[in-house]
Amino acid sequence: MVKPVSLDMGSPCTHSPVSRRRGPALEKAIFDATLCELSDVGYTGLTMEGVASRAQTGKAALYRRWSNKDDLIVDALDAELRSKVDAQPDTGAVRDDILELMRAMAAFLASPAGSAMHTIMNECVHQRVPVEPESPELMIKRRVIEPRRQMLFEALRRGVQRGEVRPDAVSERVVEVGPALVFSSYIAHGGPVQDAELVAIVDEVLVPLVRA
Amino acid sequence: MVKPVSLDMGSPCTHSPVSRRRGPALEKAIFDATLCELSDVGYTGLTMEGVASRAQTGKAALYRRWSNKDDLIVDALDAELRSKVDAQPDTGAVRDDILELMRAMAAFLASPAGSAMHTIMNECVHQRVPVEPESPELMIKRRVIEPRRQMLFEALRRGVQRGEVRPDAVSERVVEVGPALVFSSYIAHGGPVQDAELVAIVDEVLVPLVRA
Repeated sequence: MVKPVSLDMGSPCTHSPVSRRRGPALEKAIFDATLCELSDVGYTGLTMEGVASRAQTGKAALYRRWSNKDDLIVDALDAELRSKVDAQPDTGAVRDDILELMRAMAAFLASPAGSAMHTIMNECVHQRVPVEPESPELMIKRRVIEPRRQMLFEALRRGVQRGEVRPDAVSERVVEVGPALVFSSYIAHGGPVQDAELVAIVDEVLVPLVRA
Repeated sequence: MVKPVSLDMGSPCTHSPVSRRRGPALEKAIFDATLCELSDVGYTGLTMEGVASRAQTGKAALYRRWSNKDDLIVDALDAELRSKVDAQPDTGAVRDDILELMRAMAAFLASPAGSAMHTIMNECVHQRVPVEPESPELMIKRRVIEPRRQMLFEALRRGVQRGEVRPDAVSERVVEVGPALVFSSYIAHGGPVQDAELVAIVDEVLVPLVRA
């Protein structure tokens, strides 16, 4: 059972005096600063200078390792996502499996990585950067969106086996409904999606949509 | 029957030499420039200077009428929205009514005003500007989102009267599904939503979700 997560979103983005760091500590400070900059100034506005300043380090420290901002963003997201591997829920009921997946998605959206993801995906609509194999946009699709879609598919397939779900509900567009509604609620209310809203999305929309 | 709209999105955002304009012609140039700037540099990046430069006029011409960018954006959106009043569809079948509404939404999203709206709503999630009575964000909610939601409600209510729609499908969250999926497709593909996609959203998701 995934519990609703209460996130203190401000904390990683606050400045505090730092002593000299190196190795993993410096890297973590740079990654945190990258995600915070994405949230605050967006993908277009993000610069190596801005990240260095927020991480309280020099530009040289960044350029020693990353030749441009895309490489840096990809590594920062990668590090953040490694710590967030969700497991396939298996409660025995499609309703509860789906609810767990929606809760995990809402918690992710409320995290610095989720906020960064939102920024990147939205700016790419208008100012579509060339999508290269290692672009932040493609990485998000591969590492965040696609695995979660597959878990929803699997939850529905198990529901079909149990006779809870109509077989033709196992489709691309049906799978998209839950994430689209959670995202829509996140945009409309401008912040973390409340648990009562997630429950309502599941019980008023998703269960009626898929039930046999 | 609303036909899928083919929009030349580039045209209003191109520069061409202009002679001296005044009154409505100048105003239109300024409004077009405002929407284009929103698309290109975002809400945060938009400045009075940037709009003036794109409209090929002076800053003084802008400040004579608008004291800040929010006032300008509100007026630009207002002018654009006046020309886009959709009527309540009434085909006699809930499926076709909903499809028309989805097509109107997709056409709006593909227009300069839709692109501007998307930019404002998304940036407001992270950099939430104070929502004042005349804020661009509130105007979009009142003038764009809410009227369209009401038309979807009305289409469903008529469907209930005809026995096509289950009465408890006339709910806030069910009404949100179509717009959320169209928006999600717009983000995922980074451009206008194809008509085949709209038809599939209606036939694979919305009709199964609401049918009696």
